[in-house]
Amino acid sequence: MSTPIYLDYAAATPLDERVFAVMQPYLAEKFYNPSAAYTAAREVRRDLDTARHELAVCIGGKRDEVILTAGATESVNLAFRGLLEPGDHVVIGATEHDAVRGIAGEYDVTFAASDNKGTITPSAVLTAISDKTKLVSITAADSELGTIQPLVKIAAVIADVRRDRVKRGVKTPLYFHSDASQAAGVIDLHVARLGVDLLTLNAAKCYGPKQVGLLWVASHLSLKPLIPGGGQERGLRSGTENVAGAVGFARALQIAIRNRHTDSEQIRGLRDTLQKALTTALPELVVNGSQKKRLPGHLNVSVDGLDAERVVFRLDSQGVQVATGAACAANKGTRSNVLIAIGASDSMADGSLRFSLGRQTTAVDIEQASTLIVEAIRHEASL
Amino acid sequence: MSTPIYLDYAAATPLDERVFAVMQPYLAEKFYNPSAAYTAAREVRRDLDTARHELAVCIGGKRDEVILTAGATESVNLAFRGLLEPGDHVVIGATEHDAVRGIAGEYDVTFAASDNKGTITPSAVLTAISDKTKLVSITAADSELGTIQPLVKIAAVIADVRRDRVKRGVKTPLYFHSDASQAAGVIDLHVARLGVDLLTLNAAKCYGPKQVGLLWVASHLSLKPLIPGGGQERGLRSGTENVAGAVGFARALQIAIRNRHTDSEQIRGLRDTLQKALTTALPELVVNGSQKKRLPGHLNVSVDGLDAERVVFRLDSQGVQVATGAACAANKGTRSNVLIAIGASDSMADGSLRFSLGRQTTAVDIEQASTLIVEAIRHEASL
Repeated sequence: MSTPIYLDYAAATPLDERVFAVMQPYLAEKFYNPSAAYTAAREVRRDLDTARHELAVCIGGKRDEVILTAGATESVNLAFRGLLEPGDHVVIGATEHDAVRGIAGEYDVTFAASDNKGTITPSAVLTAISDKTKLVSITAADSELGTIQPLVKIAAVIADVRRDRVKRGVKTPLYFHSDASQAAGVIDLHVARLGVDLLTLNAAKCYGPKQVGLLWVASHLSLKPLIPGGGQERGLRSGTENVAGAVGFARALQIAIRNRHTDSEQIRGLRDTLQKALTTALPELVVNGSQKKRLPGHLNVSVDGLDAERVVFRLDSQGVQVATGAACAANKGTRSNVLIAIGASDSMADGSLRFSLGRQTTAVDIEQASTLIVEAIRHEASL
Repeated sequence: MSTPIYLDYAAATPLDERVFAVMQPYLAEKFYNPSAAYTAAREVRRDLDTARHELAVCIGGKRDEVILTAGATESVNLAFRGLLEPGDHVVIGATEHDAVRGIAGEYDVTFAASDNKGTITPSAVLTAISDKTKLVSITAADSELGTIQPLVKIAAVIADVRRDRVKRGVKTPLYFHSDASQAAGVIDLHVARLGVDLLTLNAAKCYGPKQVGLLWVASHLSLKPLIPGGGQERGLRSGTENVAGAVGFARALQIAIRNRHTDSEQIRGLRDTLQKALTTALPELVVNGSQKKRLPGHLNVSVDGLDAERVVFRLDSQGVQVATGAACAANKGTRSNVLIAIGASDSMADGSLRFSLGRQTTAVDIEQASTLIVEAIRHEASL
C-alpha cells in the first residue's frame, strides 16, 4: 500500500522538519540542566529564555507571562486550578474539549449554549454568567466542527460585566481564558486584540512536539501553583525544563504565524474542493457547523443513520485516515458532546465524520480521498 | 577550548544515542495521536503499551500500574495530590529534593531526621509517624550527597505500623512513596522487594529524554486525578501521550538496569579515584554523606570557609563542569537543605561541592579534573 492519505490533522500534526532541526541540539550536546551554574548550562537557559520570548512575541505578550507546560490539557488545568477556589462558578462553552470539560467539572459549572452551527454567541455567554462567575473559558475554535468563536465580542461582553460589577459593588473578579490549541496559525492570536486574560496553546497541534504547551497569563493575574517543586516556570509548574520542546514550540508557532494567510488559503481551497465533491455526490450529507466561521482545514459531515465508525475502518483499509470526532472522545466510545450541543440527533451524531486537512495535504490527496470517501459512505449507508 | 569535562550527571544526563534512535520514528512518521482509530495510530498505541509494559517489567510492576508523566516532579505531585486530602499528615525525609518538599509543604508535614551521614534511619521515620500519618515519602537516594536510603528497612517499619494500626482499630491508611529518580540504574528497583506502594522515576536522570517520568502505583491504590481531561493515563493525568518520550524512557531504563552492575563498578572506581586525589591533596577537605551507602557517581565535599560558587565558576572557565548542589536549589541561591539536615555549619554548607560522574566519564577526565579541582580549591580557599 502506498503512503496513506492523512486527513486527521486536528488529532495530531506531524513534526515540521524545520522544528525538529532546531530541537535536535538539545537532544544531543546541549542536554544541560538550565538551572546549572556553568557557562554551557547558562547558554541553554538563555536559549530557553529566547524561546519563551519568541513565543510571547507570537501572541503579543511579555516573556514572563508565558508559562511552559506539558501540553494544552495541563495549561487549561493550570488556568482553572491557579485562579479558582473549590466551589467557584465557571462558565464554559457547550462545545469545549474534554481538557476544559474535565477540570471545569470540578467546579460549579454552567455551559454557555451553542447555536446550531456550533457558535457560542456573546449573548449565550452573558446568559450563563452570574455574579458568582469567576472564570469564563471559551475555545477559540472547537476541534470537531472547527467553528471559530467570536472571542473578541465575547471579551467585550465580559468587559461590560466587569464594569457593571464595579458599578454595583460586586467584588468577584471575572477572568477570560481561551484554549486556542486548534486555532494556532489560523486566527490572530494577539492576546490584547483577543481580549483574553489567559490563553492556552499546544505545540502538538501546530507541527511542533507533543506534550509541549503554554499558558499565557496576563501579568496582573496571580496564580496558585499547579505543580510545586523546584520553582521552575515562576513556581507554577516545577520540573527541569524541556528546552528542546520550548525551542521547537517557538519555531513551530513562528512558522504557523508567518505562513498563516498562505497556509490557510491553500488548505481552505482543498477543504472546499473536498466539501463540494462530497455534497455533490451525496445529497443526503449534511455539513455540520458554521461554514462562514470555520477553521480552513475542518470539514465535519453527517449522514443520518450512517455508522461512521465503519466508514473510518473501511477508509483506513483503503489508505485514508479520518476520524469520527476528537480522538480522545472517539477512543472512549462516547457520543460527541459537540454534536449534541448543536442539537444533532443521536443518529446524526453517530453518523458524523471529521476530515481535517493540513499543510502537507495535496490536491491529489483530495481527489483520491473524495472518491474513496463517497464510495465508503455510499456503501456503509446503503445509499 | 576542548570538550568540557562534565561532572554534573546528577543534574542532567545526556540522551543516550540508542535511546534517541528508538524515539526518532515517533518524532517523524509515527506522529499519530494514539487515541485515533485507524491502523497506523493503533500501532502507535500498541508501541506505547509496549513501552509501558517494558517500564513495568523493569520495576517488577504491572503495565496498568505505570502512569506516564512529564517528569519526576509531576509524578511526586500526583502521588501526594492523588492520595491526600487537605490537612492530611505526611512524613518526608529531611534530605528530600524540592520536588517532594514543595508539594509536602501543602500538607501537615513532619520531617524524618537525617543522621550526620545523610541517612534517614527507620527509627527516624518511626519517630515522625503518628496515627494521623497517611503518607511517608523517602527518596531512594538524595541528589546532593547521593546517600542511599534503607528503603527496605523503612518499608518494614511502615508495615509494622500498619499492623499495629489494624490491631488498635486505627482506620487511617498508611502509604509509602519513594522518589527513586537518582537511583535508577544503581539500586534494585523491584517494587515488591523495595516494599513501596508508589515509586517515582525520571527518564532525564537515566540518559533518557527530559520531562518524561513515571509514577508506579500499586494496583490496590485508588488515586484522584492530578490533571483531568481527555482521560489518558487512567484518567489521572490527561493529555495526548508523549509516545517518543515513553518509548525512549523504556529503552533508557532497560539499558540502565541491564548494565547496572558494570556501569556502577566503573563509575565507582573513577569516583573513588577522584575522592582519593582530593582527600590526599587537601587534608582540610571533608567528604559529606555516607561513604558506605552512596550512589557510585556521587562525591560531595566541603572545605570550611570555601566560597564554593567561585570554585564552580573557576573550574567552568577551565572546562570542568561541577555543581554546588541540586541545580534548582543552587539557581535560587538558597543554602542546601541537605547539608543543613546533616548538621553542617553554614560555612561548611557554603563550602560544599558536588561532583557527579556518569557513563561517559573517563579515567583521563578524572585525572585532568582532579588536578584542576585541587588547584581551584587551593586557590579559592587560600590553602
